[in-house]
Amino acid sequence: MAENEHLASSPKMEADLLLAHGLVLTLDSAGRRFDPGAVAIRSGKIAAVGPSEEILASFTAPRTLDVTGCVVMPGLINGHTHAAMTIFRGLADDLPLMEWLERHIFPAERKLTEDWVYWGTMLACAEMILSGTTAFCDMYLFEHKVAEAARTAGMRALVGEVLYDFPSPHYGPVENGLRFTRDLIERWRGDPLIRVAVEPHAPYTCSPPLLESCRKISSDLGVPLVIHLSENQAEVDQVLERYGRRPVAHLESLGLLGPDLLADHCVVLDENDMELLAHRGVHVVHNPESNMKLASGIAPVPRLLELGVNVSLGTDGCASNNDLDLFGEMDTCAKVHKVASLDPTALPAPTVLRMATRNGAAALGLAGRIGELTAGCRADCIVVDFHKPHLTPVFDPVSHLVYAARGSDVRHSVIEGRLVMEDRRLLTMDIDEVMERVCGFARCIRK
Amino acid sequence: MAENEHLASSPKMEADLLLAHGLVLTLDSAGRRFDPGAVAIRSGKIAAVGPSEEILASFTAPRTLDVTGCVVMPGLINGHTHAAMTIFRGLADDLPLMEWLERHIFPAERKLTEDWVYWGTMLACAEMILSGTTAFCDMYLFEHKVAEAARTAGMRALVGEVLYDFPSPHYGPVENGLRFTRDLIERWRGDPLIRVAVEPHAPYTCSPPLLESCRKISSDLGVPLVIHLSENQAEVDQVLERYGRRPVAHLESLGLLGPDLLADHCVVLDENDMELLAHRGVHVVHNPESNMKLASGIAPVPRLLELGVNVSLGTDGCASNNDLDLFGEMDTCAKVHKVASLDPTALPAPTVLRMATRNGAAALGLAGRIGELTAGCRADCIVVDFHKPHLTPVFDPVSHLVYAARGSDVRHSVIEGRLVMEDRRLLTMDIDEVMERVCGFARCIRK
Repeated sequence: MAENEHLASSPKMEADLLLAHGLVLTLDSAGRRFDPGAVAIRSGKIAAVGPSEEILASFTAPRTLDVTGCVVMPGLINGHTHAAMTIFRGLADDLPLMEWLERHIFPAERKLTEDWVYWGTMLACAEMILSGTTAFCDMYLFEHKVAEAARTAGMRALVGEVLYDFPSPHYGPVENGLRFTRDLIERWRGDPLIRVAVEPHAPYTCSPPLLESCRKISSDLGVPLVIHLSENQAEVDQVLERYGRRPVAHLESLGLLGPDLLADHCVVLDENDMELLAHRGVHVVHNPESNMKLASGIAPVPRLLELGVNVSLGTDGCASNNDLDLFGEMDTCAKVHKVASLDPTALPAPTVLRMATRNGAAALGLAGRIGELTAGCRADCIVVDFHKPHLTPVFDPVSHLVYAARGSDVRHSVIEGRLVMEDRRLLTMDIDEVMERVCGFARCIRK
Repeated sequence: MAENEHLASSPKMEADLLLAHGLVLTLDSAGRRFDPGAVAIRSGKIAAVGPSEEILASFTAPRTLDVTGCVVMPGLINGHTHAAMTIFRGLADDLPLMEWLERHIFPAERKLTEDWVYWGTMLACAEMILSGTTAFCDMYLFEHKVAEAARTAGMRALVGEVLYDFPSPHYGPVENGLRFTRDLIERWRGDPLIRVAVEPHAPYTCSPPLLESCRKISSDLGVPLVIHLSENQAEVDQVLERYGRRPVAHLESLGLLGPDLLADHCVVLDENDMELLAHRGVHVVHNPESNMKLASGIAPVPRLLELGVNVSLGTDGCASNNDLDLFGEMDTCAKVHKVASLDPTALPAPTVLRMATRNGAAALGLAGRIGELTAGCRADCIVVDFHKPHLTPVFDPVSHLVYAARGSDVRHSVIEGRLVMEDRRLLTMDIDEVMERVCGFARCIRK
C-alpha cells in the first residue's frame, strides 16, 4: 500500500469515479487483494487501490458505485479476434476447413463493405464489453472501420489491416495495403485507445518479400507485428515444402521474430520452434476454442509457459468459435490442457486468469499499463457480480472466475476511466440499432 | 401437424398456458420447426404444438406468454450429477485426483448432514433451472433429501442413494443402504416428477455380491440402475487386476448390462467394451467437462454413436466442473471431440443438441415422454431469448444453441406444465434463503 500512503491525509483528493466495497483482485505482481476494497479512478487512470475504508477516507468523487458482493478486477484482454466476423456467426459449422472457407466464408466475404465491417465490429464490441473484455487485438479487412467502431464503443484496441499476396476485397494489390497500413498508423498515432499494428496474414499466404516489408514498416514506425503462425499441420507441411523450413524457422530467417511480434495460434510446434519463440521473446496468443472447433489441434501451452514464453488468450473470430466470451475461453483453456496432458494440475486457474489479463497486456505492448489494478495504470476494469446461484458459495474467487463465471455475470465495465457499461446497460452505443444493422447484412448474405 | 388438425374447429379448447410467437424447435423425430410457432400446455402435458396462428385459433388459456424473438424447445436433461455438491464448488481445483479427494472432498463430506444435502440440492436446482435444465439424474448421499428438494423446486429427477462396500456417512453398512433404496423406491412410486434408481457407485468400489444385489432390486422393482463406469485408466487397471476383466466385461459377467442401465463417464473403453454396451442397449452418460478437468480422458463418443449407443450429456457434480450449465457442456462437447479426432465434422451441433434432450430422455427411461415437444408429451420446455448481441445474427438456431448460447439466455422454464421460472425469476423457491444457507455450510467447511 506504499503508493497510497500519502493519500490518507485530508483534505480529500478528487477522483472521477469510485468503485467501493467489492473484493478487489489487483492481479498485480504481488497478487494483492482487498476485501472490502475500492478503486479510485481519475483522468482515465487508476489513482489508488486499497481497502475500502482507506480509499473512501482519501477520495471524493461525483460518482461512487457500491459493488458489494462483486469482484473488481482488470478487464479481460482478447489477444486475437476478427471482430467484424460477428456477421458470419453460425453461418456454417461442422464442416471440413476448405469447404467451410471456400463455400461459405469466402463467398460471404466477397460481399464485404466498409459498413458491414463497422457495424459487425460494433456488435463485437457490444458482446465483448458485455462479457468483460476491455481490450482486443484485431486483424481484418477495412480495418479503419474497426478502429472507428472500437473508438465509438470506447474499447481499447490494437488493429491492423490483413495483408497477403492475393488482391484484397478492400485495397486491391498488396502495395496499396502496405500504404494503407502506414497511413492508418499515422492517422491514429497518440490516440489513448486505438493503436495500429502491421498484420501479414500468415507464412503460407505472404511471400518472403511481403513479410520483410511488414517487418520493416513495423520496425521503422515502432508498432507491433501480428501474424497467424503454425495454426495446423497443413500449414506446416506447406511452408516446409515451399521454403524448406517450418513456419517458425521461416519467420526467423526473415527477421520477423522478436518481442514486438504477436503470433496467433502456434498449435503445431516442435521443441525447436518453441525454444526459438522463447529466445526471441515472441508473444503467443492461444485460441483454444477455435483450434478445437476447426480441429486444428491443441497448442503446447504448458511447455511454452515452462520455457518462459508470454502466452495470452484470444477467441479468434465468431465464425470459428462462435462467441467472444473470454470467460468461456478461460474455462475451456484450463480444462483442455489438463485432458491433453492427462495431468489435472496443468494450467491452474491463476495461470489462466493471468493469460487473459497481464499476459494479454504484455502481448499488446501495454505491460504495466493495463491488465492489472495498480495506481498509475490506465483504468480498464470490470465488476463481476458474485451474488449468483452458480457462483455460490465462494471458497476461491479465482476458481470461480475461470471455472464457473460467465460473461453475463459482468455488471459494470470501465475503460480508460470511462464507464462503458453500467448494470449491463451499454452506455456507448444504441445496441438495438447495432443488432438491426447486422441482421440486415445477414439477410443479404442468405441470398 | 396431423395430431393437431382436429383442433382447428371451434369452440376453443382450454389450456393452462400458451407460449406464442416464438421459433419452436420440437426436436421430434421429424425435426419439425414452427416460426412463428406456439405450444399449448394443459394438465402438465403438451396439448398441441404448431404454427402460432393455428394454436391461438384453437386454444384459450388464462395465461399466454409472448415469446417473440425467442426459441421454444424441450428443456435440457442433465444425465449425471451430484446436485448437493454445489456446496463444494471451487473448494479445491487443479490437484492430483487422490489429493483432491482425500485431502479436500472426503473430509468435507464427513461433515455432511441431511440439511446440507437438501439446501445444496436446492441451490443446484436453482442453477439448473436458471440455465435451462428441467430434468436430472442424481447420485449422492441422503438422497431422500435430494428427492424432496427437487420436488420442492419443481424439477423432474431420477435419484438414487450411492451404494458401496465401505460404511456410508448416511446409512452405515451397505445392507442398510439397500433397504433404504427399496424404501425410497416405494416412497416415491407414482410421483409425477421424482423417480428412484438403484445406484451402485462403481465396479471398483462395489463387490460382485453388492452389484448383484443392486441388479436384483432394479429388476424386481422395475427401476433403472445407475453406475460410474470406466471413468479413467486407473479404474480399468484396478478392476482388471482384481477380477481379470475390464470393468464393462466385469459388469456383463454379473448381469448388470441392459437397457435399464445408465453408465456414467465410459471414458476408457476398447472396441469390445463399446460393442458390448451397444449390444446390451446400455445408456452412456458423457460428462466432457468433468472428464477434462479431472484429466480422466476423452470418451470415444463418436464411435459409441456410430455403434448405435444412446449417449446423453451430463455435468457431473460442481466439485469437478464447476457449474451445472448444460449449454456450456454442449459447446465443450461439440468442440473437444473435433480436436480429439482432428475432424471438424465430428459431433455436429444437431447431434449434440439431441444428446442433451432426446437422448437424455431415453437414458432416464422417459423416451417419448420428455426431451421433445410433441402433443401428449409431458410439458418440460424452455424459452431461450435470442435477442442478444452474442446470438446475433441468426443463420441457424441449432448452431447458436450449441456454440453461442449460455444458460443465462434462458428466460422462462416450464416443468410438468408448471412455470418454474419467468423472466429469470425463480418461482418455486426463495433463492436468497437458499444461497444464504449454503454460504453458512461453506463457513463450516472452511473451519
